[in-house]
Amino acid sequence: MSETYVGIDLGGTNIKLGCFDSNLNLLGKTSVATKADLGPAAVVDKMLESVKGLLAEAGHSLRDLSAAGVGTPGPAKYNEGIIIASPNLPLFKNVPLKKMLSEGLAAPVILENDANAACWGEYVAGAGRDAGDMVFFTLGTGIGGGIVSDGKLVHGCGENAGELGHIIIYPDGRRCRCGQRGCAEAYASANSTAKRAVEAIEAGAHSSLKKVFEENGAITCKDVYEHLAKGDTLAGEITDGSARALALLCINVLHTTEPKTIVFAGGMIGAGDVLLNRIRDYFNEQIWTLKKETVEICFAALGEDAGIIGAAALAAQCKNKDDAQRKQ
Amino acid sequence: MSETYVGIDLGGTNIKLGCFDSNLNLLGKTSVATKADLGPAAVVDKMLESVKGLLAEAGHSLRDLSAAGVGTPGPAKYNEGIIIASPNLPLFKNVPLKKMLSEGLAAPVILENDANAACWGEYVAGAGRDAGDMVFFTLGTGIGGGIVSDGKLVHGCGENAGELGHIIIYPDGRRCRCGQRGCAEAYASANSTAKRAVEAIEAGAHSSLKKVFEENGAITCKDVYEHLAKGDTLAGEITDGSARALALLCINVLHTTEPKTIVFAGGMIGAGDVLLNRIRDYFNEQIWTLKKETVEICFAALGEDAGIIGAAALAAQCKNKDDAQRKQ
Repeated sequence: MSETYVGIDLGGTNIKLGCFDSNLNLLGKTSVATKADLGPAAVVDKMLESVKGLLAEAGHSLRDLSAAGVGTPGPAKYNEGIIIASPNLPLFKNVPLKKMLSEGLAAPVILENDANAACWGEYVAGAGRDAGDMVFFTLGTGIGGGIVSDGKLVHGCGENAGELGHIIIYPDGRRCRCGQRGCAEAYASANSTAKRAVEAIEAGAHSSLKKVFEENGAITCKDVYEHLAKGDTLAGEITDGSARALALLCINVLHTTEPKTIVFAGGMIGAGDVLLNRIRDYFNEQIWTLKKETVEICFAALGEDAGIIGAAALAAQCKNKDDAQRKQ
Repeated sequence: MSETYVGIDLGGTNIKLGCFDSNLNLLGKTSVATKADLGPAAVVDKMLESVKGLLAEAGHSLRDLSAAGVGTPGPAKYNEGIIIASPNLPLFKNVPLKKMLSEGLAAPVILENDANAACWGEYVAGAGRDAGDMVFFTLGTGIGGGIVSDGKLVHGCGENAGELGHIIIYPDGRRCRCGQRGCAEAYASANSTAKRAVEAIEAGAHSSLKKVFEENGAITCKDVYEHLAKGDTLAGEITDGSARALALLCINVLHTTEPKTIVFAGGMIGAGDVLLNRIRDYFNEQIWTLKKETVEICFAALGEDAGIIGAAALAAQCKNKDDAQRKQ
């Protein structure tokens, strides 16, 4: 019997699911609305149904499922498989998700932080393939992170390693929603990038973004990059600020776990080469001269599938480890 | 036959050696002048002689030696056992130290970065005992670092992980000897602490340190802490600057690999509780409010023995792994 794995990315808005064979080839994927307001039991039922449907479409049944992996936002006790709380899943308080799912699926289930799952996806099948040592940043509302060291995800003593957006790069700088000052997240997340543009316009900066702000009452990160492409000076300055903050982050993680590859993911990488090249330029400008660094700084390759691929890969890894232990 | 291990700390000035039983109990230790100017062959001969002498004193012969570990400054190809170059060992260029020693000792030899070896010593037998996840800083001429993640030393893709003194904490700040600006090392190493005091006095600051500077033409880090103890205001400000930089380092490594324990070592910890308490205060002042952090920030427990203990422990680990592989 061939192995079949399911990877699940449980978000506040959508649940993404993918079904994979033993070589992590995608057999099928789907996405359903989370409807988190119906509570954990209803969400778990929906996950179980979706897995069954996905397996059926791929010509499989629940009996063929070897293991499932789930990426969820923290804080959670990932080892125990319990979601403690989540801003995006407000009714989930101390929910034993791993137990609920593994009983419903009659298969082993592994829980992982969602950024770590996406990081692992890029590591096994994307931009960091075979890097051995990799650091992953996801640029969205905030900045999430994941670290692979010597081929393993770094979890830390309390399963909260990789909070890379909260590395302080400008002491006494902008206030971050975490309570610290000067976090990278307060400068270079998609939200902070947009927010800095709004602040500049409110302070009287000249920019083609001013019209957007007047019409929509808001500016998005996408607006900034669109106006950058059209040559707007302020959009260029805002992008520079984000790129420099991200370059400082790259330098600091390089000197910590020394990744071979640094991967940026999240909506903001839609900005394309103009952002990537500025990050690389600032990195080269600010990195030490002690020795030449060859770290590759690049964008993610798997898009929105990174989470489900990573979760499935972790499930496969966990299953193989279990099998190996049973054989001993 | 019981196992016997030797740990060696190869420095530019002295070679420290320790002989240990299988439980890492110290059977004897010694220190000899390196005399690096005599060249690698002479230094290796001295190391071999010292190991033999140390074993004999403990009632052993070379035949009883199970393995030896050596901590050396980088850059080196530790896996291959080759010292590429070292500012403190100027005649050591591409020296196959591991091969030379293992032939001379007729036992397996493992080479490790000196800061990593000391980090490992504190991890297995000192302040970070059983922490699982630990970060280690050594405050000397520069700031060295070591990281233990999930019970293993982090080496990075090119064996240069843990260059924690070169984490940038003040972009556009003080120039570091590495070429970057704003490295932690440029503020909080023993040398930088002393240098900042000299700069302040040259800029006209009032301080009891002024007399020291006029008499000796220099100020040491030790002077700063001695005058701090006597209530000198400038010494207090300089110490504050170092403590704040070190607290920022603590926050940044906490958000990266999430250590349970952060250990400071090196001559500068002679400053005692006044320094440690200031680091902790700044940490608590600047850390996020998102969740309570319980990381222990403390000083090293093994003093100068950390390096030889760590090197011996790594040798034992390596030997045990070899044995296990041979049994399979």
